[in-house]
Amino acid sequence: MAFSSDSFLDIDRSAPPKVRGFRFAGIAAGIKANGKPDLGVIVADEDVAAAGVYTKNRVRAAPVEIAEKRTRKGHLRAVLVNSGNANACTGKPGEKAALAATAALAKKLGVPAELVAPASTGVIGALLPADKIVDAMPRLLDAVGTDKASDFARAIMTTDQWPKVAARTLKLGKESATVLGIAKGAGMIHPDMATTLAFVVTDAGASPALLQKLLREATDATFNAISVDGDTSTNDTIVLMASGKAGTVKAGSKEAKKLREALEDVLGALGRSIVQDGEGAEHVVTFEVTGARSDSDARKAAKTIATSPLVKTALHGVDANWGRILAAAGRSGAAFDPSGASIHVGDVKIVGGGMPIGKDAEVAAAKIMAGPAYTIRVSLGRGPGKARYLTCDMGKSYIAVNANYRS
Amino acid sequence: MAFSSDSFLDIDRSAPPKVRGFRFAGIAAGIKANGKPDLGVIVADEDVAAAGVYTKNRVRAAPVEIAEKRTRKGHLRAVLVNSGNANACTGKPGEKAALAATAALAKKLGVPAELVAPASTGVIGALLPADKIVDAMPRLLDAVGTDKASDFARAIMTTDQWPKVAARTLKLGKESATVLGIAKGAGMIHPDMATTLAFVVTDAGASPALLQKLLREATDATFNAISVDGDTSTNDTIVLMASGKAGTVKAGSKEAKKLREALEDVLGALGRSIVQDGEGAEHVVTFEVTGARSDSDARKAAKTIATSPLVKTALHGVDANWGRILAAAGRSGAAFDPSGASIHVGDVKIVGGGMPIGKDAEVAAAKIMAGPAYTIRVSLGRGPGKARYLTCDMGKSYIAVNANYRS
Repeated sequence: MAFSSDSFLDIDRSAPPKVRGFRFAGIAAGIKANGKPDLGVIVADEDVAAAGVYTKNRVRAAPVEIAEKRTRKGHLRAVLVNSGNANACTGKPGEKAALAATAALAKKLGVPAELVAPASTGVIGALLPADKIVDAMPRLLDAVGTDKASDFARAIMTTDQWPKVAARTLKLGKESATVLGIAKGAGMIHPDMATTLAFVVTDAGASPALLQKLLREATDATFNAISVDGDTSTNDTIVLMASGKAGTVKAGSKEAKKLREALEDVLGALGRSIVQDGEGAEHVVTFEVTGARSDSDARKAAKTIATSPLVKTALHGVDANWGRILAAAGRSGAAFDPSGASIHVGDVKIVGGGMPIGKDAEVAAAKIMAGPAYTIRVSLGRGPGKARYLTCDMGKSYIAVNANYRS
Repeated sequence: MAFSSDSFLDIDRSAPPKVRGFRFAGIAAGIKANGKPDLGVIVADEDVAAAGVYTKNRVRAAPVEIAEKRTRKGHLRAVLVNSGNANACTGKPGEKAALAATAALAKKLGVPAELVAPASTGVIGALLPADKIVDAMPRLLDAVGTDKASDFARAIMTTDQWPKVAARTLKLGKESATVLGIAKGAGMIHPDMATTLAFVVTDAGASPALLQKLLREATDATFNAISVDGDTSTNDTIVLMASGKAGTVKAGSKEAKKLREALEDVLGALGRSIVQDGEGAEHVVTFEVTGARSDSDARKAAKTIATSPLVKTALHGVDANWGRILAAAGRSGAAFDPSGASIHVGDVKIVGGGMPIGKDAEVAAAKIMAGPAYTIRVSLGRGPGKARYLTCDMGKSYIAVNANYRS
């Protein structure tokens, strides 16, 4: 069963592939007032190598601090994830609640608590009801199964419109390994229900150090290059666990490269699904900056363009507003001479030599921009640097959702 | 005739004070299709000391390049300003058009063209119709008068809902000097009609070097600390001209400090008026960050909070959403420990020790947030650094205006 990243949207989300060495569950534990699933677990059959990437925000929820500390030791047995409560800005009591919840799971599994990584998403500033999680623990573990990844995916949703699941296979010698990713998003759009969470499991194996390197690289190329509105959350977490049941991958090998590509494909597909799920979003747009002095300059320009409210409202208005794009690049800090800049919408060139091509080009570009997904290429004409940034349009429902979210 | 910055909104905009040594005019030259005033001039009686501050955007319109080069020499006779066309992204032909327009004025005034600074605001990517400006020159100069500052203010408007004029007097020994500022804004909201332009004249006198220093400081404290949406334009320009008819101010003197304060008051009042004029804006909000490690850290935090779409939509929703404010501060790069942070809306404390005070406090805060103007104070509990940033809420009409602007 193989999924290419491009076929992501055709995945049967209710039947993700099994991954040797892992079991999943998702149930309703009463954390959400509406009674929907809100507690999930991924349990490895034995201690497995693990890696993690966490929010760079200085305001970090208790579970992020704990998960980072524990994952850094290189091995995990399980992740315990709740939705409905972010356990952020809850101080010492919040830390205790997260410790109590993971301790209850560890006890049931008969392992040290240090092998359980917690993650939370939901309302900020309310204490996690650890007692509800502890009470639900027997039911949660009763529900665990190798084919329950879709239950887990549903249990970690907040305002997501659909569960986010992506998978890919890769050959390791004669063995076929699977990389399965499960995420929740719309986080940056619904900041009180904070957060982008992603959990990736694979039956490929690697050292914790190699896993950390591959996950970091794959994250920089995918999740760190998407934007709904430029805000980041207090709870963002990505955890990778590798059982090694399909064989082991060594640093510097061809297989390591294949594993990184698979991680990139899976995280990339999850990232696109998150952007697509942005409320009010009608267009998913990839900004591709080329010709920058350096990759770093290209990233600056791509990020500034992709997060500019003026650019994003123009995308919503299906307006090939090259002036806003150029002006955003201009203030990004990237070095370039505007008179060498060009812009393409899809295949249509709308700016060359820093000046507009003409009305006909803009009309042709607008036709492309009416579609649900397209690429805008900005060449700075300065060097070999390039970068991509995924974004969505900003429409009226963005305002409606975010102005009235807590009312 | 004295105006404090606080009484700015009560100024009779149709009768700004005269300033010795300067005459003004504003007429319709046919640049705007709707026939509204679109060409303005400020003429000094003789060459005067001058200073300028310009957009940091790398994409700069031809008039910005020319104005900066000419003002840097320290003296000007006149500024020539048009609305309806930004003359940006117009390449060599745009530069020629700006040179032709200023040359026509210089010829009429009998001075070298280098003494005329141009400024333009309006649609990007369309060549400035220099011939219309040249043709209108006799009419423009016929209209010039010491009492025509309000005509000038109207001629430089684009989508502004009202002209922006502010003035203050200061004592220089026994003489009373006046600082008069005229601006157009809504620029960052209407990015194709780009631009914040501001022109300040005073009958105080100072060396070009001192003027440049005072203008830079006053700009950093005012115009560089306001945001409608975080975008900057291709044409932003502030020019200061000083005739010296009320006496001369020396560097390091008490009078120099007074002049800087007057400049700050005038630019501050113009800045507030620009933010207030943001379409869709119902609330003008000052974010005051204190307790940062340094002023630079405080500025980072204040700017990130004030330009966050999530924060700005919460302001629109009259929601004391402290979680979004803390999260924005957390990603700003400012160093602080969230557990030491507090937030006040007006006098109401809603966060202490990084945690929410409670529902009652948020209800009390929401009452303040229903008003047209208020302050939110964020203390990082880390050091003596402080900064302010002025912003407005982001409402549905922001989207409507910006998504459909060019259609």
